[in-house]
Amino acid sequence: MRAVVFENYGEFPSLTEVPKPEPGPGEVLLRVAGAGACHSDISVYRLFKEGQPGAQKPPFVLGHENAGWVESVGSGVSDRVQVGGSYMVYGPIGCQHCRKCAAGLETYCENVATMPYLAVGLGRDGGMAEYMTVPERHLIPLGDADPVAAAPLADAGLTPYHAIRAALPHLAGGGRTALVIGLGGLGQIGVQILRALSGATVIATDVKERARARAEANGAITVEAGEGQVERVRELTGGRGVDAVFDFVGAGPTVAAAAASVAQGGRVSIVGIGGGSHEFSFFTNPYESYLTNTYWGSVGELWEVVDMYRAGQIRPDVELFSLEDALEAYRRLEAGEIDGRAVVVPNES
Amino acid sequence: MRAVVFENYGEFPSLTEVPKPEPGPGEVLLRVAGAGACHSDISVYRLFKEGQPGAQKPPFVLGHENAGWVESVGSGVSDRVQVGGSYMVYGPIGCQHCRKCAAGLETYCENVATMPYLAVGLGRDGGMAEYMTVPERHLIPLGDADPVAAAPLADAGLTPYHAIRAALPHLAGGGRTALVIGLGGLGQIGVQILRALSGATVIATDVKERARARAEANGAITVEAGEGQVERVRELTGGRGVDAVFDFVGAGPTVAAAAASVAQGGRVSIVGIGGGSHEFSFFTNPYESYLTNTYWGSVGELWEVVDMYRAGQIRPDVELFSLEDALEAYRRLEAGEIDGRAVVVPNES
Amino acid sequence: MRAVVFENYGEFPSLTEVPKPEPGPGEVLLRVAGAGACHSDISVYRLFKEGQPGAQKPPFVLGHENAGWVESVGSGVSDRVQVGGSYMVYGPIGCQHCRKCAAGLETYCENVATMPYLAVGLGRDGGMAEYMTVPERHLIPLGDADPVAAAPLADAGLTPYHAIRAALPHLAGGGRTALVIGLGGLGQIGVQILRALSGATVIATDVKERARARAEANGAITVEAGEGQVERVRELTGGRGVDAVFDFVGAGPTVAAAAASVAQGGRVSIVGIGGGSHEFSFFTNPYESYLTNTYWGSVGELWEVVDMYRAGQIRPDVELFSLEDALEAYRRLEAGEIDGRAVVVPNES
Amino acid sequence: MRAVVFENYGEFPSLTEVPKPEPGPGEVLLRVAGAGACHSDISVYRLFKEGQPGAQKPPFVLGHENAGWVESVGSGVSDRVQVGGSYMVYGPIGCQHCRKCAAGLETYCENVATMPYLAVGLGRDGGMAEYMTVPERHLIPLGDADPVAAAPLADAGLTPYHAIRAALPHLAGGGRTALVIGLGGLGQIGVQILRALSGATVIATDVKERARARAEANGAITVEAGEGQVERVRELTGGRGVDAVFDFVGAGPTVAAAAASVAQGGRVSIVGIGGGSHEFSFFTNPYESYLTNTYWGSVGELWEVVDMYRAGQIRPDVELFSLEDALEAYRRLEAGEIDGRAVVVPNES
Repeated sequence: MRAVVFENYGEFPSLTEVPKPEPGPGEVLLRVAGAGACHSDISVYRLFKEGQPGAQKPPFVLGHENAGWVESVGSGVSDRVQVGGSYMVYGPIGCQHCRKCAAGLETYCENVATMPYLAVGLGRDGGMAEYMTVPERHLIPLGDADPVAAAPLADAGLTPYHAIRAALPHLAGGGRTALVIGLGGLGQIGVQILRALSGATVIATDVKERARARAEANGAITVEAGEGQVERVRELTGGRGVDAVFDFVGAGPTVAAAAASVAQGGRVSIVGIGGGSHEFSFFTNPYESYLTNTYWGSVGELWEVVDMYRAGQIRPDVELFSLEDALEAYRRLEAGEIDGRAVVVPNES
Repeated sequence: MRAVVFENYGEFPSLTEVPKPEPGPGEVLLRVAGAGACHSDISVYRLFKEGQPGAQKPPFVLGHENAGWVESVGSGVSDRVQVGGSYMVYGPIGCQHCRKCAAGLETYCENVATMPYLAVGLGRDGGMAEYMTVPERHLIPLGDADPVAAAPLADAGLTPYHAIRAALPHLAGGGRTALVIGLGGLGQIGVQILRALSGATVIATDVKERARARAEANGAITVEAGEGQVERVRELTGGRGVDAVFDFVGAGPTVAAAAASVAQGGRVSIVGIGGGSHEFSFFTNPYESYLTNTYWGSVGELWEVVDMYRAGQIRPDVELFSLEDALEAYRRLEAGEIDGRAVVVPNES
Repeated sequence: MRAVVFENYGEFPSLTEVPKPEPGPGEVLLRVAGAGACHSDISVYRLFKEGQPGAQKPPFVLGHENAGWVESVGSGVSDRVQVGGSYMVYGPIGCQHCRKCAAGLETYCENVATMPYLAVGLGRDGGMAEYMTVPERHLIPLGDADPVAAAPLADAGLTPYHAIRAALPHLAGGGRTALVIGLGGLGQIGVQILRALSGATVIATDVKERARARAEANGAITVEAGEGQVERVRELTGGRGVDAVFDFVGAGPTVAAAAASVAQGGRVSIVGIGGGSHEFSFFTNPYESYLTNTYWGSVGELWEVVDMYRAGQIRPDVELFSLEDALEAYRRLEAGEIDGRAVVVPNES
Repeated sequence: MRAVVFENYGEFPSLTEVPKPEPGPGEVLLRVAGAGACHSDISVYRLFKEGQPGAQKPPFVLGHENAGWVESVGSGVSDRVQVGGSYMVYGPIGCQHCRKCAAGLETYCENVATMPYLAVGLGRDGGMAEYMTVPERHLIPLGDADPVAAAPLADAGLTPYHAIRAALPHLAGGGRTALVIGLGGLGQIGVQILRALSGATVIATDVKERARARAEANGAITVEAGEGQVERVRELTGGRGVDAVFDFVGAGPTVAAAAASVAQGGRVSIVGIGGGSHEFSFFTNPYESYLTNTYWGSVGELWEVVDMYRAGQIRPDVELFSLEDALEAYRRLEAGEIDGRAVVVPNES
C-alpha cells in the first residue's frame, strides 16, 4: 500500500510503497478516512537527531491524527468493535502497566523511556497510509459523524481540550476571562472549546489578521499581538488580568505576554513547544497564579472531544489532500500556507 | 415613609407609614430602586407561627431582594461607598464572627440560632419601602446597570447561581447534561446560568407550557412534567442520565423525578422548599451520585451574579409595580398570576 | 489443581479438582500466594438466584482478593512483567473499551450488562486455587512486601480507600472529624487509612467491644453502637456533626445513624450492602451535606493502596488457612468467627 | 503605655511610651498576651524605603502575630465577644468591601493600594505593646488554650497552613511526598502541619544541623541543604520527584532546588521572600507541575490553625521575652540567635 514514510533523521518524508499491516492480538486494522498533518511532524523529520530527547527513530509512517473504518480485527478483540464502523484513534501508546496508563493518561506513561515509540505516527506506523493498526482500546466510536474532518481532533482537538479542562476551575463562574495566544489549528479550536465550556470572555491574540478574524467569528474578542498587547488585555479585564491563559506558541515573546497577562490566582498553561522561557519570581508573579505546561491528553478526554464534535461545539477547519498529494500538504505546512488543518484522505468513504 | 409591613403571623402585609430609618455605624442609607416580591415571603406571612423554625418575628418591612442608590452613610463607613451610586444588596446578615461568616457565607452563620434576624426583609427591615439601611459590606456596585431589574438577582439570581456553581465540576467537559425542574423565577434564571457557564445540554421541565416556551427561548430543550417525563429525560441523555439535576420546586413528585433522572456520578440539588422527600438506598442510587440541598448563597457569589447581569448573561424577566401597588403584587403572586418576577419600584431613578 | 468452586446457586462451595489454567493473549499465569475470603462471597453463593441483579453464573473458582507470583506469561505480555515476581491483582474486569474503563474505573464499566463476568472470583475464575490467570494490566508489583497479608487489600483495602479518597476534600484541614460505622475487615482498614491520610479526629462505632478495642489501637475514639450513639458522636464534634461518615454496614439503623451524624457541608458514604434506606428531605438534611454510595475502586487507586501497605500505613489483620481448610474459612466467616480477614494460602512462598 | 515603635525608615525600633488606644466602632481593646517577633519586621524597619512597594509608613507599633484578652469593647460590638476571654488576632485588614475581603481573604484585598495599612503591626499599630485594638471579626476564640504560645500562629502558623492547604489535593492519597525547604519558624510548623494533615512522606532540608534535628523530632526525614541535595531528594522519592514542595526561604538556590525536585503533576509553592527567581520552560518543567507563590492566609484558615493548636497538632517552639526586653529579641533575631519564635509577653495572664 502507499504511505508517507519518515525515512531518515533530518530528511523530508517520502511517499512510498509499504506492506499492508496485519493486526496483532488486541488490535484492529483500520482503513484510514483522514490523517491530519501536524506542525510537530515537521520537528520530527527536520529537527530531531538520533538519541535526542523527543527524537522518534525512523523509518515509520507519519500521521498521529487519525480516524477511519475498521476493516478487520486481530485475536482477542471484543465483539463490541464493529467491522465497518467509524472510529477516532487515540494516538499515544504507553506501557499499559503503570499508574498513568492505568488512568488512561498514556502521554505521561512512567515507562516512556523504555517504550519503542510514543504514539501511532510517532515511532510506530501512523495513519498517512491506506491502512493502519490500532489497539482496540485506542478506538472511540464516531457513529455517523464525519471521520475525515474528525481526524485532526486526535491532537489539534485533544491538546487544547486537555489544557482547557484542567483550567476550568479557574473559569467556573461569572466575570471570568480567558486568553488564547496563537490562533493556528489548536488555538482556533481552543477558542471554540472555551466558548462552549465556560462563560468566560475569551480574548484571542495573534499577529495574523486573518487568524484573528476567524477567532472573532468563533466568538472571541481579539487583540493584535505585539506592542501594547498586554496593556490592551489588562484593559479588557478591568485591570485585573486574565483567569486562564493558554499559550499555543510557547516562544519567548508569547510566554512573556502570557505571564504578564495573568490575574492573581489565575493560571498560565504553556502548550506550544516554541521553547521560550520565563523568569519566575515571588515578587513579580501575581499571588497564587500558576505557571504550568501541558502535553496532549488522555483517552477519556478524547471521548469528550468526540462528544463536542458530534454536538457541533467543535468545528475543525480542514483543507483536504489526497494521499498522492500528502507531501504537498507538508510542503505547504512548512511554508505557512495552511490555514486550519491539512487532512490527508487516503480512501473514499 | 411608606412601607410594606408584615405585622402579625398569618396575616397579609399592610402598606403603612413607618419612620425613615437612620444608618447605624458601618451602615448606609439606601434609596430603594427595586424590591422583588418572592414566594418565600408568602410562607413568611401566611404559614409560619411564632417559635416555629424559619419563623421571622413581626413586625418588619418585607423585601429581601433589593437594589438602590446610596443616600447617606453612617459613622465608620469607608469613602469607597459612593453617595448617589447604585448598589445591589446582599440580604443575609450573619454574626460576622464565626467560620462561615468569615468566608462570606452568612446564610450558614453558625450563630444563626441567636441572631435577631436572618436577612434584610426576613426579620430585619427590608426593601419594600422608600428607604432601607444596609451594612456597607453587603453592598455590591452595579455601575451603570439598571438597578430595578437587578433587584430580584439578590435571591432569584443568587440562589440558582449558588446551586449551579457548586455543581459545575459535574458539568466541566464535553457531553454533559443538566436538568432544571420547575421553571418559575429561579428556574428560568437557572437555565440562563447553565447555558452561560457550561457546555451542557440543558433540559428543562415544568407543567406549564408558557414556562417551557420561555425556557426554550433561553436555550433549553424542554420536557413536559408528569407521566413519561423521566423516560424522556433518560432518552435525551442516551440512557446515561443527567450529570446535574436542580429541583427548584422540591415537592414529592419533583424530588422523585430528580432522583430518577440522575446519572452515575451525577448530582441532585434540591433547592425548592416544597418539602418532598426521597428514599435513598445503596441499591437504587446510581453509584456515586450525590443527593444534597442548597440554600441561597454567599456575598462573593453575588458579586459574580452581578458580573453575569452586567455582561447580559442573566436577563431577569420582571413585572414592575409602584409601591402603592405592592400589595397587589403579593395578591397576584399568591394567585399564580406572575410570570418571571414582580418588582416593586418605590422611587424614580 | 485444587480449587474452591462455587458450583450451583444457593449452594456452599466445593473444594475440588479443576484443570490448571493457561494464560491467554495479554494474560499471565499466577501462582497464588493468598486469596481473601470476603463476606460478599457468601451473598454470591447463598443469596443470589439466576438472572437476579448481582448474580454471578456458576461454576467458577471463588476468590476476588488475590496476590501471587508470576509463573508464566501469555502472548503479547510485555517484558516489564517479571516471572517469579510478586504482584497484587486488581479484581474488576471491564470491557476495556468505554469511558470508565479508559480511566481505569472498571467497576463502573458502561458495558457491564453485556460482560460475561464482573471480576476474577466473581463470574471469572478467581484465586482460591493453586493458580489463576490475570490480564497483565491488572497486576501491581509488590516488590519485597509480603503477598499473603497483601491479598485482602484487593477489596478490603481498596473499597475503603476509594470511599475515603473521594471524601478527602471534606477532611482537608484542621478541626475535621470522620466517623467509621462498622468495624469489620473494611472498617478497621478504613480507620487506618483515615488516620494516615487526614488530620481528622476519627470516631468509630460498632456493637462489638473487641472490634472497638482494635479500632482504638488503630487510633480511633470509639462509641458503642445503639442508643445514644448519635448524641455521643455529636457531642464529640462540639455539636457540629461529622465532616465525613463512612457506613461499612449499610443496614437500616446504620444508615440512619450515618445521616443523623453528618455536619452541614459534610458527606455520608454508604459502602456496605446491608440494603438499608434513608428518607432524604430538604428540611432534615443539614445544608449542603451529601448522601452517596461507593463501590470497590479503580486500578490506579490500588497502586496507592499498595504504596500505603508497603509504607506500613495499612496493616491488614489476617488469619491464615491452607487451601485444604478453605471451606472451613468460609464456614467460620458465615458463623461470624473471623476477626480481621481470612486468607487462604494455596502455595508456599 | 509601653510599646515597640518603628519610628523611621531604616532605623531600629524604639521602646517608648505611647497613648493607650481606644476601640473604635466595631473594635475591641485587647490586653496583649503575646506578640511574635517575625523576620519580616526586620525587612520593614531595615530595608524598605518610603514609597517602595511593601513599605509601611512609620510610626506605628510593631507586632503582627498577636493573642490576648479582651479588656473592653467599642460601640456596635456584639455580645458574642467575651470581656476577659482569650483570643487570637487575624492580622491582615482589608477594605471589607471587595470580592476578596468578602471571602475572608483580606491579604488579597483588591483595594490594597488605597488602604492606609496592610495589617495590625504592618502600618497599623500592632501587638508589641500592653494594649492594642482589633476589629471584632478579626478575633478567634482560644478557649482555655495558652494565648502566649499561640501568638506566633497568626503568621508563622497561618502562612504555612495556607500554603499547605492549597496544596493538599496534590497530597491526597497513598505514596505521596512533600518537601519543606528552610526549617525556621514557618518551616518547623510546616512539617507539623504536613505530618498531621496528610499521609505524605515529609522530607525537610536546611543547612543547620540543629534545625534538621528538630524537624526529625517532628517526623520528617531530613536532607542537608547544598550539594547533592536534589539527587538525595529524588532518590528518596524513587526517582519520581516530590508532589508538593514548599520553599520557606525563597532565595535563588532554594528556588532552584524546589523546581528541580518537583514531580510531574506536582506543585512548587514559593512562600519565602528571599527574592530568588527561576527560569521556567516547557522543556524543563516536569509536565503539569505548577509553580506558584502564596502569601499569609485567610481568617477562615486561622480558625483551623487554632483548631490544630488546640488539638496539639501544632506545637510552636517559643522563646519568651518581657516587653522591656523586646528590642533584645529583635537584636537576637537579626543575629540569627533565635530558634523557633521569639514572643514578647507584655502582660501577665
